[in-house]
Amino acid sequence: GWARAVRGLLLDVSGVLYDSGADGGVPIAGPSAALKWIKASGLKLRLCTNETQATRENFVRKLQGMGFDVSVSEVTAPAPAACHILKERGLRPHLLVHDDLVPEFAEIDKTNPNCVVLGDAAENFTYANLNEAFRVLIGMEKPVLISLGRGRYYKETDGLKLDVGAYMKALEYACDVQAEVVGKPSKRFFESALAEMGVPAEQAIMIGDDIVNDVGGAQQCGMRALQVRTGKYRPSDENHPDVKPDAYVNNLAEAVDIILQQM
Amino acid sequence: GWARAVRGLLLDVSGVLYDSGADGGVPIAGPSAALKWIKASGLKLRLCTNETQATRENFVRKLQGMGFDVSVSEVTAPAPAACHILKERGLRPHLLVHDDLVPEFAEIDKTNPNCVVLGDAAENFTYANLNEAFRVLIGMEKPVLISLGRGRYYKETDGLKLDVGAYMKALEYACDVQAEVVGKPSKRFFESALAEMGVPAEQAIMIGDDIVNDVGGAQQCGMRALQVRTGKYRPSDENHPDVKPDAYVNNLAEAVDIILQQM
Repeated sequence: GWARAVRGLLLDVSGVLYDSGADGGVPIAGPSAALKWIKASGLKLRLCTNETQATRENFVRKLQGMGFDVSVSEVTAPAPAACHILKERGLRPHLLVHDDLVPEFAEIDKTNPNCVVLGDAAENFTYANLNEAFRVLIGMEKPVLISLGRGRYYKETDGLKLDVGAYMKALEYACDVQAEVVGKPSKRFFESALAEMGVPAEQAIMIGDDIVNDVGGAQQCGMRALQVRTGKYRPSDENHPDVKPDAYVNNLAEAVDIILQQM
Repeated sequence: GWARAVRGLLLDVSGVLYDSGADGGVPIAGPSAALKWIKASGLKLRLCTNETQATRENFVRKLQGMGFDVSVSEVTAPAPAACHILKERGLRPHLLVHDDLVPEFAEIDKTNPNCVVLGDAAENFTYANLNEAFRVLIGMEKPVLISLGRGRYYKETDGLKLDVGAYMKALEYACDVQAEVVGKPSKRFFESALAEMGVPAEQAIMIGDDIVNDVGGAQQCGMRALQVRTGKYRPSDENHPDVKPDAYVNNLAEAVDIILQQM
């Protein structure tokens, strides 16, 4: 029954379309065809990613290079959402993010910082950079920490890597603050993705490999959510104490196949 | 009244005797004389430290080089306490610690690790090393994380630095485990220090710069505890929601002076 009355799909990207890695990553078998089926079907589509290692432009270029038919206008990502919040509240960030993400903040005033923005900085998560971000925060009367996602870890071609959420917890603990999360599983973030797609939550399905950030977050917004058995999926996810997906599927192609059969 | 009926003093070291730093650190004015007064008074003394950047031998050598009259047999530190636990439970650690601490684990079997031991690894807190420790943990059926202390941050001569507790929180979150803390503020650790000194909790005073790990931990064990206004002390500590020291003192010398006047 989970595949009934669907008008739009939100897709996580890393671990669903491709496995990321230092070499740029490799496509997972199947999703490229599945994307074509989705577009041919008339279903609305949104790529709902916590990707913060590249600008949307470069991210989409990489996906296109792997053979995926996607465009920048189809992507909902944390950095633009964070810029919106920074402008709204007059915040000037100290950035601890991946070098390739910095251009997303080109128009933001970064002088005399009054908050820290944390992304998946990868190789920029050095001891020196973490101490620097910590000192900026602890020096504020009321520390403001904005985290682009709160993922625990993700899979790259050379193994599992700590994600931004682990470093967020380190800074939260050191400064005794609670980070504001921009990106999945934040409700506001999923709601923007739905609005951009023009589909209400009850007619949308989220498909991702992350049991908490994709599946749990989307369900909290009233969407159905599937977990794919690709990417960082681990069998123990199926015993998660709090989150149960509406269904498990082996990969994106299987999910889309079932959805299209019901249309 | 806090200085009555004292038979033993437990002293934190970094931030009380000296300020640590890349150059080895610099002594705080006053404590060197205070140590001499303590020894002349007949009070029992124990250095109760979460220092994990050096073996006890090298740590004591450094303190002696700064003019402090201390010996290895007066030091209670986390690494030896951890070795005791590792042997007791047949645990083989993957170490993420400072290079200079490794010799403390010389007699411990480290092949085919079934736990991770985390210390204040400082420059060894690299992105690669954190990912490696994470992968060892997440690969275990039931991850065991032993943390040498849970401090948030400390002060070095070139500024505040994230302490082991921040990295502990990162790994705890990523692996969904709770670390076992060896060192302050663990009750077992304070109790060993008291036993080594041969003084019951109610006749001992802990003196430290850390409101939670020194003051709170010692009070939990039934000791009195003072916070010095040196080291990482910050005025906002005096508004701590949970912990109130038995007294504030400007530095160790002032504390010892008051205690000796009451004897």
